[in-house]
Amino acid sequence: MADKIKVALNGYGTIGKRVADAVMRQDDMTLVGIAKTKPDYEAYAANKKGYPIYAVDPAKAESKFKAAGISLAGSNLDMIKKADIVVDCAPEGLGEENKKSIYDKLDKPAIFQGGEEHEVAGTSFNAAANYAQAIGKKYVRVVSCNTTGLCRLLYAMDTAFGVQKARVVLVRRGGDPNDAKRGPINGIVPDPIHLPSHHGPDVQTVLPHINIDTAAMKVPTTLMHMHFVNATLKKKPSRDEIIAAIKQYPRLWLIPSWYTIKFTGDVIEFGRELGRPRNDIMENAIWEESVTIDKEGEFNVFQAIHQESDVVPENIDCIRAMTGIEKDGKKSMEKTNKALAIGNFNPWKLTPP
Amino acid sequence: MADKIKVALNGYGTIGKRVADAVMRQDDMTLVGIAKTKPDYEAYAANKKGYPIYAVDPAKAESKFKAAGISLAGSNLDMIKKADIVVDCAPEGLGEENKKSIYDKLDKPAIFQGGEEHEVAGTSFNAAANYAQAIGKKYVRVVSCNTTGLCRLLYAMDTAFGVQKARVVLVRRGGDPNDAKRGPINGIVPDPIHLPSHHGPDVQTVLPHINIDTAAMKVPTTLMHMHFVNATLKKKPSRDEIIAAIKQYPRLWLIPSWYTIKFTGDVIEFGRELGRPRNDIMENAIWEESVTIDKEGEFNVFQAIHQESDVVPENIDCIRAMTGIEKDGKKSMEKTNKALAIGNFNPWKLTPP
Repeated sequence: MADKIKVALNGYGTIGKRVADAVMRQDDMTLVGIAKTKPDYEAYAANKKGYPIYAVDPAKAESKFKAAGISLAGSNLDMIKKADIVVDCAPEGLGEENKKSIYDKLDKPAIFQGGEEHEVAGTSFNAAANYAQAIGKKYVRVVSCNTTGLCRLLYAMDTAFGVQKARVVLVRRGGDPNDAKRGPINGIVPDPIHLPSHHGPDVQTVLPHINIDTAAMKVPTTLMHMHFVNATLKKKPSRDEIIAAIKQYPRLWLIPSWYTIKFTGDVIEFGRELGRPRNDIMENAIWEESVTIDKEGEFNVFQAIHQESDVVPENIDCIRAMTGIEKDGKKSMEKTNKALAIGNFNPWKLTPP
Repeated sequence: MADKIKVALNGYGTIGKRVADAVMRQDDMTLVGIAKTKPDYEAYAANKKGYPIYAVDPAKAESKFKAAGISLAGSNLDMIKKADIVVDCAPEGLGEENKKSIYDKLDKPAIFQGGEEHEVAGTSFNAAANYAQAIGKKYVRVVSCNTTGLCRLLYAMDTAFGVQKARVVLVRRGGDPNDAKRGPINGIVPDPIHLPSHHGPDVQTVLPHINIDTAAMKVPTTLMHMHFVNATLKKKPSRDEIIAAIKQYPRLWLIPSWYTIKFTGDVIEFGRELGRPRNDIMENAIWEESVTIDKEGEFNVFQAIHQESDVVPENIDCIRAMTGIEKDGKKSMEKTNKALAIGNFNPWKLTPP
C-alpha cells in the first residue's frame, strides 16, 4: 500500500472535529493535526485524544494555550506544510480567504465546505454522484449538509428511474446544538422569501441535469433538518421499486415503522442508543412509511438530515478522490462506510477511558 | 468475592436504559434483563446489545416482538423472579402500582425513582448524603434528578460549613430530547405557582435538617435543568474554601472558565466531545466562575443538572446499599465513579461495532 495520506484540519468546529475523528478511523490516512484560534472545551478534548494542536496565530494565542495546559505544535501554516491535503473547516466565507492567503501560496490541495461558493473550488462534490470529477483536482468543495442529503436521494432516484422534476421543501434547523446565539427562537422564517432557495442551484453544481425547485424555512430547533421531497419520475416505479432502489445505498437509511421513530428527536435519540460518536446519524434518515406514490405517479417522501455530520463521509471520500489514492468511488464509499459504521445499526463498543 | 447481584430493570425508558448499561459496567452486578411493553428503537438497540428482553404482557406483545425479529425471554414476572433486586423505571406513578401488584407479592426488593412519592418506599436516597440508611432496606426511592443535584451540593456545603438556609430557583427543561409531546414550546411557566415547589421538601426526605426554600419554572428546552443556588452558611468560608470543598466530590464538577462553556448546550456538547455514552453528564455541572460570596457572606452559584442521567450512579450505589454487598458508601461511590468514568474527563475509547 502507498504511504498514508497526511491530512490537516484547518478549523475545528462542528464539521472539523468530526472529519478529524473520521480521518483517524481510516487505514489509508493520518491526521497531521488540527488548527484552533484559542483553547476551549473542544481543544481540551482534542488534546486529550492526542491530536497535535496548531494555532492560527501562535504569537497571540500561545499564553492562553499554555495557561490551559495545552502544548502547541506550531502555527497552522506549519501544519499545512506537513500535509498532503488540507480540509478547510473554517467558518463560512473564511475558506475563500484561506485559499488566497494560504493554500495558493503553499501550493497545497484543499477541500472546502458547503458554506463557500462553488466558484471557490470550481468543482462541487458528492461521493455517489460525481466522485470521478474530483480525481486529481487541487480544490474541491464538498456541498452543504442539505445539498448532500438531496444529492444522495435524487442521484439514487435519477439513476433508477430518471428525475423529470423535483420539488423540495426544506424545513431547516435554526442553529446547531452548541450555538447559543442563532435563531429564530419562536417563529417560522421563509428563508429566503425570494424563490428558489439556493439549494436547488446548489444540487445542480453536482448534478447539472437535474430539474429542481426548492423552498426553505428556518424553525426553532437544533437537531436536524427535514426535507419533504416530491419528484416526477420518468419511469413510473412502484412503491416497492422505490424502496428497493433506496436500499442499495448505505447512506440512505429507511426507518422501519416499528422503530416508532416519530420525529427528529427520536432519530438523534437512536444515535444515542447506538452509542454513535456524538450521536451522529450520517445517513439520510428516510421514513419508510412516508414513501408514497400519489395518483399522478409522483414520488413523495420525508427525510431528516443531520446537519452536523452527513458531510463527514463525503469529506473522507473527497480526500481519496483528490489524492487519487482510490479512483473507484464505489470502493472508497465502501471503505468509508465500514470505517464509520455507516449503514450499520449495531451499537458501538464503548470502553471507558 | 460474593456472587454478583442479579439486577432486573422493570421499565426501559430514559432512566431504565441508562441504569441497565451502568449495571453492565459493574463487576459486582449482572443484568437479568429488561422489560418493555412493545418493540421500538430502544428495544432494537437493547436486543443488539444482547440484553434479555421480557414483555410486560407477553400474550399481547409477542406477535409484535416476533415481527420485529426480537425473541422474548418471558414475562416481566419471570424476569423479576430471577433477580435479587428490581430497579423500577416505569413511568411516573406506575412504581406504586408495581409495588402492590408485583414486588410485595414476589417479596422482591425494589428501587423506585423520584417520580414516585417518598411514602412508596419510606426511605429516600442520595449516595453522598444517606447511603447508610438504605442498607438492608426492602424498598428505597432514589430521589429525582433535581433533588439529587441539590442534595449533592447542599450535603457538601452543609458538611463543610453548615447550611443555615438555602434558597434555590430551578429553571427546568420542559421535556426530554425524545419527547415530542411535552411543553411549553413558548413561554416560562411558574411550576407550581403556589410556593414552595416540591423540591425543597423532597431534599428534606434525604436531608431532613436542611432549611430550604425552592421555586421552579419550566422553559422550552430539552437538554438540562439549571439551578441558581443561594445559601446562608453557618461558617463564613472564603470563595477558595468553597471551591476546595466542592472539589472533594467527583459528582460535583467545576467547569473551568477557559473551557468557554457558555450554556447547557455546551455542557451537552462537551459530553459529545468526550464520547460519553448518550453524551451523559452525570456530574452536577457547576460554573466555577459563578461561585460567589456576596457582601453579606452568602454563597451563590449556577449549576446545570442533566435530568436524563444524574440519578444513574445513585441507583447503582443504592443497589449496593440495599443488598449490603458494600456497607461503606464512600467505597461504593468510588467503585461506581470508576466504572462510569464519573469525574473523569478523558475521552472514551470508541470502537466501531
